[in-house]
Amino acid sequence: MSNSPNVLALSGGVGGAKLALGLSLSLPVSALSIVANTADDFLHLGLPISPDLDTVMYTLAGLNNREQGWGLAGESWHCMTAVERLGGPSWFRLGDQDIATHLMRLNGLQQGHSLTQVTENLCQQLDVDHQLLPMCDEAVRTYVQCAPDNHHDTTYELPFQSYFVEQQCKPAVTGFRFEGIERAVISPAVASAIENADIMVVCPSNPFVSIAPILGVPGLKQRVLDNISTRVVVSPIVGGIAIKGPAAKMMAELDMPRTPLAVAEYYQGFASHFVLDTCDECFVDDILALDMQVLVTNTVMNSLEDRKELADTILRWIQASG
Amino acid sequence: MSNSPNVLALSGGVGGAKLALGLSLSLPVSALSIVANTADDFLHLGLPISPDLDTVMYTLAGLNNREQGWGLAGESWHCMTAVERLGGPSWFRLGDQDIATHLMRLNGLQQGHSLTQVTENLCQQLDVDHQLLPMCDEAVRTYVQCAPDNHHDTTYELPFQSYFVEQQCKPAVTGFRFEGIERAVISPAVASAIENADIMVVCPSNPFVSIAPILGVPGLKQRVLDNISTRVVVSPIVGGIAIKGPAAKMMAELDMPRTPLAVAEYYQGFASHFVLDTCDECFVDDILALDMQVLVTNTVMNSLEDRKELADTILRWIQASG
Repeated sequence: MSNSPNVLALSGGVGGAKLALGLSLSLPVSALSIVANTADDFLHLGLPISPDLDTVMYTLAGLNNREQGWGLAGESWHCMTAVERLGGPSWFRLGDQDIATHLMRLNGLQQGHSLTQVTENLCQQLDVDHQLLPMCDEAVRTYVQCAPDNHHDTTYELPFQSYFVEQQCKPAVTGFRFEGIERAVISPAVASAIENADIMVVCPSNPFVSIAPILGVPGLKQRVLDNISTRVVVSPIVGGIAIKGPAAKMMAELDMPRTPLAVAEYYQGFASHFVLDTCDECFVDDILALDMQVLVTNTVMNSLEDRKELADTILRWIQASG
Repeated sequence: MSNSPNVLALSGGVGGAKLALGLSLSLPVSALSIVANTADDFLHLGLPISPDLDTVMYTLAGLNNREQGWGLAGESWHCMTAVERLGGPSWFRLGDQDIATHLMRLNGLQQGHSLTQVTENLCQQLDVDHQLLPMCDEAVRTYVQCAPDNHHDTTYELPFQSYFVEQQCKPAVTGFRFEGIERAVISPAVASAIENADIMVVCPSNPFVSIAPILGVPGLKQRVLDNISTRVVVSPIVGGIAIKGPAAKMMAELDMPRTPLAVAEYYQGFASHFVLDTCDECFVDDILALDMQVLVTNTVMNSLEDRKELADTILRWIQASG
């Protein structure tokens, strides 16, 4: 392994994007490829929306809205207001600038470009130099399976964004289904990124709805296992909570302890290295027993420096242990 | 004919929309249907744009930008700015609020609704009570045939919006082609509007690119001739110029005099009544000789009162002469 190892990062949205940004600040352009989940993509008002891909892209471009946690900084909402006046849906908020991204994607896809190509073009325009790839070019759609409740006698399914945004993650989760995943294909760009990688880093993203779909692309997980011996998972669970998103709530509903240990067990047989936060040091021995190397460090990324520091720490650790 | 005759108006964009608005101020909801040209519709950034339909709709809703002459009043341009940042086209300006209309249309069409249904829904949301109909539900696309110039050795074609907006009507016109017109079908709503109409009013719109496509829908012109005996054309040419748009420039390039008489000759055999401006009174006898009844009045609509006054004057004249 050279001084600048090639890293393949897997990321969902906001939480994962923080470490993806950190890695981009630590690694030269040629040494990092980020593969983002696209199973929470959906059509809204006819627009192809790729929330995770755009969150990573905006974050790498320094254009993300840090206060809001999603979307673009300095965003305006004139189009949405007009959509509401026209009787359209308002539960999924699209900012005026953000809509431009979706229009460019719609136009590119209509012209026959792949999502990979469209993403490359958008990144180029936003001066995002590190490679950002959708997990595949085919449409995969996450459905969240929900427990019976006051309105449903039996288990039922919600499209991911209905669960996540419209229902604000309130329904209790029993499982997940990735519609279309069996038709997904490892793209040439993802194949090449796997082939070139020395290290894989699973960013602190939701294991069930962000990382599972990526690893669920037929053949992808096995190809990673065959090609990349150093597979690092950064725990998205810190001190019993998820820093961002419903991961901890989902774990409880799935009868899993809300601990980094449960995350490590989830990735057993796949992760070779596991990173957990200092506040969760008590789980180190149990995770070591899962046959993983373990790094205890500060994983909560509040500042830009935190993001780069976590990336640097992980890379130094891997190189020292490798 | 009752005191409130049923009127079918044909309209292009801005110029026609003025009289359409005037008619809507003069006639009860049940007594007016407006059929708008859709041959200058096009896909832009993946959005289905219907410029004439939207101009009439916004005008009837009182939301149009009167200073600019197109689009919505109080419009903002944040999305367009972002599209430009992403390397997208900027020659056709879409306002943030206007984009909402196109998104609702995109979404409606994707869900299998017809353009007629989508337009009805949009009008309902904007409290446009009078019936506004696209000329057909099928895609018809105007191509402007242009004379050879410094960049072209032979005649060439431009899609209408490229000619109209991007090239600002600069190329010299030799003819027009309405792609897909042979597959267009008279919609049930247009058929019903023709059947119920006592009077047809051709608003002061471009004869070549606004009215010709409407009358070019297979069977439509004949159905009008068979069903509506009073067919009024309001001259879009006043004092040798077009109040709005390239009609006069086109007439010169097509070797037609830029006069209301030439317009009347163009509609000979179709128009039974012709309305021209006071400043063009000299043409009355020649137009009478074309076997048309002629009304000379002020046709320049600057104020809202002008719009209603012209509509009232035409309707009073028809009823008096009928």
